[in-house]
Amino acid sequence: MTEIDVLISEVGPRDGLQSIDTIMSTEHKKEWIKAEAESGVREIEVGSFVPAKLLPQMADAFEIVQYAKDIPNLTVVALVPNFIGAKNAIDAGADKICLPLSVSETHSQANLRKSHDEVLEEIRKISEYIEQLEKSQRPEFEGNLSTAFGCTLEGKVSEDLVLKLGARMMELGCNEIGLSDTTGYANPNQIKRLIRLLNKEVGQENLKSMHLHNTRGLGLANALASLEEGITTLDSSLGGIGGCPFAPGASGNIVTEDLVFMLDAMGVETGIDINKLLEVTNKVQSFIPDESIYGFTKDSGLPIGYEKGWGIVRS
Amino acid sequence: MTEIDVLISEVGPRDGLQSIDTIMSTEHKKEWIKAEAESGVREIEVGSFVPAKLLPQMADAFEIVQYAKDIPNLTVVALVPNFIGAKNAIDAGADKICLPLSVSETHSQANLRKSHDEVLEEIRKISEYIEQLEKSQRPEFEGNLSTAFGCTLEGKVSEDLVLKLGARMMELGCNEIGLSDTTGYANPNQIKRLIRLLNKEVGQENLKSMHLHNTRGLGLANALASLEEGITTLDSSLGGIGGCPFAPGASGNIVTEDLVFMLDAMGVETGIDINKLLEVTNKVQSFIPDESIYGFTKDSGLPIGYEKGWGIVRS
Repeated sequence: MTEIDVLISEVGPRDGLQSIDTIMSTEHKKEWIKAEAESGVREIEVGSFVPAKLLPQMADAFEIVQYAKDIPNLTVVALVPNFIGAKNAIDAGADKICLPLSVSETHSQANLRKSHDEVLEEIRKISEYIEQLEKSQRPEFEGNLSTAFGCTLEGKVSEDLVLKLGARMMELGCNEIGLSDTTGYANPNQIKRLIRLLNKEVGQENLKSMHLHNTRGLGLANALASLEEGITTLDSSLGGIGGCPFAPGASGNIVTEDLVFMLDAMGVETGIDINKLLEVTNKVQSFIPDESIYGFTKDSGLPIGYEKGWGIVRS
Repeated sequence: MTEIDVLISEVGPRDGLQSIDTIMSTEHKKEWIKAEAESGVREIEVGSFVPAKLLPQMADAFEIVQYAKDIPNLTVVALVPNFIGAKNAIDAGADKICLPLSVSETHSQANLRKSHDEVLEEIRKISEYIEQLEKSQRPEFEGNLSTAFGCTLEGKVSEDLVLKLGARMMELGCNEIGLSDTTGYANPNQIKRLIRLLNKEVGQENLKSMHLHNTRGLGLANALASLEEGITTLDSSLGGIGGCPFAPGASGNIVTEDLVFMLDAMGVETGIDINKLLEVTNKVQSFIPDESIYGFTKDSGLPIGYEKGWGIVRS
């Protein structure tokens, strides 16, 4: 397989689909995940292990993980809110589980109905559980610092708290830390500063991933800033599903197609075939015809005479 | 006046309005320009001196320049396609004139019906004309390299040709050179490479400005890359007027409000009051109710508890 510079982690089947009213059928989810993996995407967050009564869109997470783990060259990620969810995700065969801890405790209470200490206790229990599994059964365990750049309930969040919680998650057994601009508040300088600070706290090798939203249009600029500070995994959502920028207050993930176009044009290897990826978009749109799918590259098409890497800086 | 780090050059009244069907009334243009200057914008490209039969939207350029030159702390820019246009713009009192030379000769022929040599001859004549004016009457004269990152007719353009034409424009008497991604083809690495190469050719002090489109969603990432390479003037259009990203093939300028939000949040001083700027957007929308005005920050609003410069990198 081609060596890649940046890992695109597709979060549409989780973050995208949990944010729209339409419930995509299990078969369509499978088709989407398979087609996107075939376009070269190597990591997909396929679902969330939350109670189906809270998020009916995610009711088939177990089946989807089981299905996806048989797709070659794909890391299957599941979001888990707590120990029970983690246990289920691991039983289903997830390669990686990701637990979000809201730096804004108000948001944590609103979202998971848990204080920081309560979430950290879940993390401890999950680590303990993973520890006693056979090595081949152990998933990667990412602790994700959500609302790390600001919160729609609290406003500004404390950077010291971000650092403290990041360090605590590593102590409790997470394998890596991710940063999330859940609210689309971040800007490139803030991104750079927080990465630098958190690198000092948890070690650069443990801070790999960045999750960005495009709420104020800064998503790709923030992605660029993240790469410049050594981030190697970027989350994004195909067709920006789950947030539509045409509507006030929209808050979608950065768009996979635009992100991949940017990196591909820059000569940053993602392993993804941009043309195949754009075909997946059409397929997914046909599965959810009533939902907005957006993206600039999707609408404008690739440049005439486009060549991968035409913007490589040689100096 | 506050010292600024980056000059925002508003091009909506020219690049925006020339791209839409609606003809904005002269009075509304004046109100727009005045209000935006009052929000702190210090340079506005107010019109284009092309024959009114070709661009009826720009028929009042003379009157608009005359009006705008009385607004305090505002550099009034006019686009000129040739010597005749330049003479008119200077007669009207423009502080700065900007002449676009398409690096793609096919585009130059399609746009201005002129070869490179013919455009360069116009530049020579304009310089000669400026030279014999009294010093106080002489405008700044920017030569702008349009389609510098690729052309919708030719595809890839030659970087060597960009450098050659840039050097030639300086020799012929331009005061500064600008780069334009007219087609929205550029990516951050290409931007960085071309700026570095052109700096060597014309001197960094003479390459000040970058004109970006958001066709593939990379506009603000490209703006960030430009700043990192020393660009100090960024063109943008209020409400992204002139290109609507919701429609296939749309090709609008980067959005002033989003750009200013990004810079303001990063602690990069533009001299602009973001809240006042967002009020100007509403005013302009009311002038052209049938046209799409877009922008992420406009729709989402500023973050809760937003503070200017909350992302300053101190290291």
